[in-house]
Amino acid sequence: MKFNIALLAGDGIGPEVINEAVKVSDAIAKKFNHEITWTPALTGAAAIDAVGVPYPDETHEICMKADAVLFGAIGHPKYDNDPSAPVRPEQGLLLMRKKLGLFANVRPTFTFPSLIDNSPLKRERIEGTDLVFLRELTGGIYFGEKGRRDGGETAFDNCVYTRVEVQRLAKKGFELAMTRSKKLCCVDKANVLETSRLWRETVQAMEKDYPEVTVSYEFVDAVAMRLVQWPNSYDVLITENLFGDILTDEASVISGSMGLMPSASVGEHTSLYEPIHGSYPQATGLNIANPLATILSAAMMFEDAFGLKDEAEAIRAVVNKSLEEGIVTEDLAPKGSKKYKTSEVGDWLVANL
Amino acid sequence: MKFNIALLAGDGIGPEVINEAVKVSDAIAKKFNHEITWTPALTGAAAIDAVGVPYPDETHEICMKADAVLFGAIGHPKYDNDPSAPVRPEQGLLLMRKKLGLFANVRPTFTFPSLIDNSPLKRERIEGTDLVFLRELTGGIYFGEKGRRDGGETAFDNCVYTRVEVQRLAKKGFELAMTRSKKLCCVDKANVLETSRLWRETVQAMEKDYPEVTVSYEFVDAVAMRLVQWPNSYDVLITENLFGDILTDEASVISGSMGLMPSASVGEHTSLYEPIHGSYPQATGLNIANPLATILSAAMMFEDAFGLKDEAEAIRAVVNKSLEEGIVTEDLAPKGSKKYKTSEVGDWLVANL
Ligand SMILES: CC(C)[C@H](C(=O)O)[C@@H](O)C(=O)O
Ligand SMILES: CC(C)[C@H](C(=O)O)[C@@H](O)C(=O)O
Repeated sequence: MKFNIALLAGDGIGPEVINEAVKVSDAIAKKFNHEITWTPALTGAAAIDAVGVPYPDETHEICMKADAVLFGAIGHPKYDNDPSAPVRPEQGLLLMRKKLGLFANVRPTFTFPSLIDNSPLKRERIEGTDLVFLRELTGGIYFGEKGRRDGGETAFDNCVYTRVEVQRLAKKGFELAMTRSKKLCCVDKANVLETSRLWRETVQAMEKDYPEVTVSYEFVDAVAMRLVQWPNSYDVLITENLFGDILTDEASVISGSMGLMPSASVGEHTSLYEPIHGSYPQATGLNIANPLATILSAAMMFEDAFGLKDEAEAIRAVVNKSLEEGIVTEDLAPKGSKKYKTSEVGDWLVANL
Repeated sequence: MKFNIALLAGDGIGPEVINEAVKVSDAIAKKFNHEITWTPALTGAAAIDAVGVPYPDETHEICMKADAVLFGAIGHPKYDNDPSAPVRPEQGLLLMRKKLGLFANVRPTFTFPSLIDNSPLKRERIEGTDLVFLRELTGGIYFGEKGRRDGGETAFDNCVYTRVEVQRLAKKGFELAMTRSKKLCCVDKANVLETSRLWRETVQAMEKDYPEVTVSYEFVDAVAMRLVQWPNSYDVLITENLFGDILTDEASVISGSMGLMPSASVGEHTSLYEPIHGSYPQATGLNIANPLATILSAAMMFEDAFGLKDEAEAIRAVVNKSLEEGIVTEDLAPKGSKKYKTSEVGDWLVANL
């Protein structure tokens, strides 16, 4: 098969981890007889520096034409302490999500047996954890009307959802649950918010179309607790944009493998794959960042965007092997053992595929 | 001294745990020569059943006249699966907060040495954890305009904050930080929300009035992670209503002592003290609920509302003693050891004061 993949490396360690994912993807393509064309494009602070905006039209064209988008990370410290700077890298991220129609962010959290003791949680609490959040990504308070009144003394953000937005996200949730343990949890705050009541009634009405799926409804505050107490009691969770932002990050630290967690954003026009970690500016250019989350995101891309399960499994298998053999960057290297460089990890994976 | 305390037992196990807190408070009052008048009043599902509304005017009058309010818990399963029921217990809670002007919810999270191994987190992650959230409680998306449009197909919730609302909450945060380690963390989502930008700029402008306090600004998603990773890196945290709802519940489970965590809500007219746990309907009437969180809330009341530090310390000391000696309800009793009843714990505390 032939693929055209848009390559958005972004800021900080983005280019370094993307580089390794490209190496591994190319090796997989060679092995399985595919042909990948990579089309790099600017985004984030790198795009602001080059052309003044964080998500240039040219980048958008490239993404729209691509079969999938592989994304690194964006964010730069020079914007960090000035959230009201007129142009910010994050605006590019939000604009990209909206313009590409990426309404569902798929965020798995699972454990790697060899890393389980890195978790802040006790082993018996997390063993067997394998959950997936579907976070709504193009609606809610992120995209509602916002602004100031009373000469700047009053600020407001509007959270808005339509039934159709809830339905399309929930549909993905039901479908995903059908391929897994048929358990779906709808996370909301229906005891307070009208948007949550719309979420809940919409999902309730869809239950009859998926009679095999058991649906539970939990309040966001209760989920924030239970994720720490019994993460392995969850399977598929669906939620709105802001709750998803908070809970998926919370969930990411429970496995002890945050540096390895991939994600996908899917929707109307294309799909995008990215590590969940940030741009880690302090490590930029040092060749020390862990490339595995990006490489596992590429595996998700092979499986979900191109339907190539064997290719994805091959990547996951070699990543597992590297973990077992201790071919890891400094964040995962036990005290006293060798710390591999970003590029050395990539080289080892390619050699062992 | 003489005090008049409004007693809002509420639903589920509320009356049982409140009963023990009254016993212990009366014993303390006797010992230190104070006189307490308790004025019971209806709230929650109990109030709906009796008079049709969850926060009757009469209850409000009683609270307004009281020196403090001691609160149990509200919520009843018959409302749980119907978030759009016309009258719900939670509405009483929100109305009470608003009408009593309880704009700051004070939620400490700390560890009890004898309970530390109950935590889902590893000992080394939580030892020394002693943090306090100040959650804004009468503004934000909880109280903004909400409703439907387009024949019910679109729902909205408005999040609104004024500078004055942020200032009065932040002031309490700075003052509390001054009495502790002088570290304050402002939790927001200033990279996305205009209300968060108002929060951040307001707190930034107040920094000069508290030159000794070191202020950090963190995004809510990052805090949701770090609370699980390094809870003992935090001291005082201030945040808006919805973020506070999620993060304080998340924080409550890290100590392993959730059943013991007290809270206070303070503001314009009076102050209210309550355990952070819910109404635990399954345990209603069984005399098995843990009364310690309510008893420790009474200790907060003695200290903060009445300025009686010795009385508060005496309560905390006897609670610690009960934990050390294993005079605990079933939630804390190790396998095979005696499970004390709710009232037995209260009796023991009174006898050992
Ligand atoms: C950078 C920020 C705007 C973004 C979000 O809140 O969605 C990030 O936290 C994420 O989760 O991808
Ligand atoms: C019951 C509910 C309305 C309430 C809230 O969200 O404030 C509760 O979760 C709390 O934190 O006291």
